[in-house]
Amino acid sequence: MAKEVILLNFWPSPIGMRATIALREKGVDFDLREEDLSNKSPLLLETNPVHKKIPVLIHNGKPVCESLIIVQYIDETWGPDSPLLHSDPHERAHARFWADYVDKKISLARVARALTEEAQAAAKEENIEGLKVMEGELGDKAYFGGERFGYVDVSLIPIYSWFYGLEKLANFSIGEECPKLVAWAKRCMQRESVAKSLPDPHKVYDFLLELRKQLQAQ
Amino acid sequence: MAKEVILLNFWPSPIGMRATIALREKGVDFDLREEDLSNKSPLLLETNPVHKKIPVLIHNGKPVCESLIIVQYIDETWGPDSPLLHSDPHERAHARFWADYVDKKISLARVARALTEEAQAAAKEENIEGLKVMEGELGDKAYFGGERFGYVDVSLIPIYSWFYGLEKLANFSIGEECPKLVAWAKRCMQRESVAKSLPDPHKVYDFLLELRKQLQAQ
Repeated sequence: MAKEVILLNFWPSPIGMRATIALREKGVDFDLREEDLSNKSPLLLETNPVHKKIPVLIHNGKPVCESLIIVQYIDETWGPDSPLLHSDPHERAHARFWADYVDKKISLARVARALTEEAQAAAKEENIEGLKVMEGELGDKAYFGGERFGYVDVSLIPIYSWFYGLEKLANFSIGEECPKLVAWAKRCMQRESVAKSLPDPHKVYDFLLELRKQLQAQ
Repeated sequence: MAKEVILLNFWPSPIGMRATIALREKGVDFDLREEDLSNKSPLLLETNPVHKKIPVLIHNGKPVCESLIIVQYIDETWGPDSPLLHSDPHERAHARFWADYVDKKISLARVARALTEEAQAAAKEENIEGLKVMEGELGDKAYFGGERFGYVDVSLIPIYSWFYGLEKLANFSIGEECPKLVAWAKRCMQRESVAKSLPDPHKVYDFLLELRKQLQAQ
């Protein structure tokens, strides 16, 4: 019998990892289905007809799309004793603001996809600027929300799995620029939910190499 | 004495109107402060140092930024008996999806700011496509969430105040393309919260004319 929770995913996708981390934080048993993005499944096209993108969470047959909306859905549906968003409306708004900032200002995919040196330099600068703002927001806290791993951490940590590949591929050294952020990422990696959800950085590097080859051939 | 709720706003801004509609739906008394965007107030720069944009809601001295996050904050803080978001997590995710769609796909400002015929045609096409998708989602319902005015309605209705100006300025006839959406907009306008928050379309037209003059002079 099919599990009641299905996640349509693509393993190197940072936004997909947000969903797997949140599900694992809540201890939800789920059926993880890999999509071939060059040949999307009928289930993906049917459950996300508007954007046709992963991740899609399907709970008892009902789809939820867009990664941050999925994380909020998971938070509201399971494990009220281990909330990702604080119960205080102002704390919630603050966390939503920073997760939204990550979505708007940080795109390591732009670095990976930049084929000219100029485009790569611009994408790197933009990302470093965004990451430094996040480092400032983190400050000396253990996690973005304070002592507990939460919504902003789930939103940002997936890109950590791309750091190694981009360092090799684009000489994009994030550790030097943002040492506190790297220390935070290592702290997050000690959580089972994160360690299980982030792919091996070497595998991501191979994926990024392949992606660049394909882009250059186009 | 200063009111406990302050809204930093700029009257023609559709995202600013989202905040005023939500506050009025909840019956919250607030101090509406117009910003001069060419000379932003110290309060705006201090309360939204990251984006430096309106709207900013300041509640008991604490700022909340980004319009949809503000609307959710208002919904979680005041008037639990007249919720904008449904209590069911799936309904909430569905509404969040469509409000996010509005943010990503509909930008009448792009039509207003397009200076060449080509750019204008592209912006019009993009917006019409997005508006038709919203018309499909509305279907024969009274409001996006069903019988009650809610989160998606708050997110989308402000642009109705720009329809007249863009019809005159860019021959952008939304009524012909999306009759159900226009009927919905008229329904929303019967609510005091909306009627009070949306500016006079002729005033918006004058604003858009002035904006184009300034853009052309640059």
